[in-house]
Amino acid sequence: MATTTARLLLLLTVAGFCLCHTTGQEAAPPPPPYCGSLRTAVEARNIIGWKTVPPPCAKYVADYITGERYGRDADVVINEAIAYAESLKLSGTGKEIWVFDVDDTALSTVPYQANHGYGVQPFDNQSFLKYVAQGSAPALQSTLQLYRRLLQLGIKPVFLTDRTEDQRTVTTNNLLQQGYCSWEKLVLQPVGLQTTTLAFKTCERQKLVNDGYIIVGNIGDQWNDIRRSPDGCRTFKFPNPMYYVD
Amino acid sequence: MATTTARLLLLLTVAGFCLCHTTGQEAAPPPPPYCGSLRTAVEARNIIGWKTVPPPCAKYVADYITGERYGRDADVVINEAIAYAESLKLSGTGKEIWVFDVDDTALSTVPYQANHGYGVQPFDNQSFLKYVAQGSAPALQSTLQLYRRLLQLGIKPVFLTDRTEDQRTVTTNNLLQQGYCSWEKLVLQPVGLQTTTLAFKTCERQKLVNDGYIIVGNIGDQWNDIRRSPDGCRTFKFPNPMYYVD
Repeated sequence: MATTTARLLLLLTVAGFCLCHTTGQEAAPPPPPYCGSLRTAVEARNIIGWKTVPPPCAKYVADYITGERYGRDADVVINEAIAYAESLKLSGTGKEIWVFDVDDTALSTVPYQANHGYGVQPFDNQSFLKYVAQGSAPALQSTLQLYRRLLQLGIKPVFLTDRTEDQRTVTTNNLLQQGYCSWEKLVLQPVGLQTTTLAFKTCERQKLVNDGYIIVGNIGDQWNDIRRSPDGCRTFKFPNPMYYVD
Repeated sequence: MATTTARLLLLLTVAGFCLCHTTGQEAAPPPPPYCGSLRTAVEARNIIGWKTVPPPCAKYVADYITGERYGRDADVVINEAIAYAESLKLSGTGKEIWVFDVDDTALSTVPYQANHGYGVQPFDNQSFLKYVAQGSAPALQSTLQLYRRLLQLGIKPVFLTDRTEDQRTVTTNNLLQQGYCSWEKLVLQPVGLQTTTLAFKTCERQKLVNDGYIIVGNIGDQWNDIRRSPDGCRTFKFPNPMYYVD
């Protein structure tokens, strides 16, 4: 009887555990079902000009970034970019380039975001500058795969970032330490330039074209990194549900 | 003791039920985890030129379309479009228009897709023409909400479709029956025109602009409905994981 009671207690525990997990009685409430739709709408450029992640979706975005889906979404984009690059017939002139954005495309700001709510807090430039100055941003591994394949293929990387010229040394060292070992150009914004990412990057890509380069690919986590002619023969939107840049 | 044994059996049953549900031993295998990433990549125009849904994702896409997520994704896009339209200051000239694609934007092909694998089968033009000829395509309800709000605001709808001129009557009647009760223009392709959706629609939008219209908005389920200048002041990508149109 003692054994039977012990089994009963064990089964009650198992059953209770199961029921809690299936009905979610002990877990935090799930995020609103629309958070995934918001993320998709951001990726498809249906939602623009937003300032912060809506607070009800804070946990959703944190879970997305720290879970498996972010990496999987990135892998699918990068695999497509690699397949595209491998399909190209190069001119032999060595003028084909691929434009990379830096923050949250080549290098990750996730260690910074982890301390700032993954986009639910308003952007704070001062603390972000400190993060950049540390020069410790990890590579986004999928992007590094694309970068390495492009070098093998003879397509030259160009980094185009709205980081500023005073961040050239720390950015160079950070890229080198993370495995981005050579590039055709690293283009940064002049200090104090009053413009948008869209205007700055469009203008700089036009200069590249004027210099005879062929932009065969262009990848960034912001639509304003990759849209407006000359955008490149093909563009890729790297996933980012954390913030929007004009 | 009999009561104890009965309780034990009940608990074993509950525990077994729980474990099956938590480990999925009785359920069909889940779709590969990358199917959702593929869908996102299609919406963000990272994957283009594809012919069919990959077979391992057939069930994923069918479940997406017939489940809640498709409607929720559409609602998020449409709510954003309505908010944008409401923010506009109109000129008072009555020249502001909103361009709508027809199939899978204004009217649904889901009843057709249900009999053709939701995109996993290659596109079959003959059977699709029969579906169009029935004139029974239901409205996408979220799009109808946008349409009605635009009429209230004084923004005129223009339907621009790669359906052909010989389908004008059936298309007109289908739109009318589904609640699209008036429009500025319904632009269809000439029969036998050898071109892409992208080229045809870009050219037709240019004609609208030349006629003095202001394209304040443009919505379609294909990127080739909504890209290339004159694309409109703002464009919206309506979700569609089932097929890609050049």
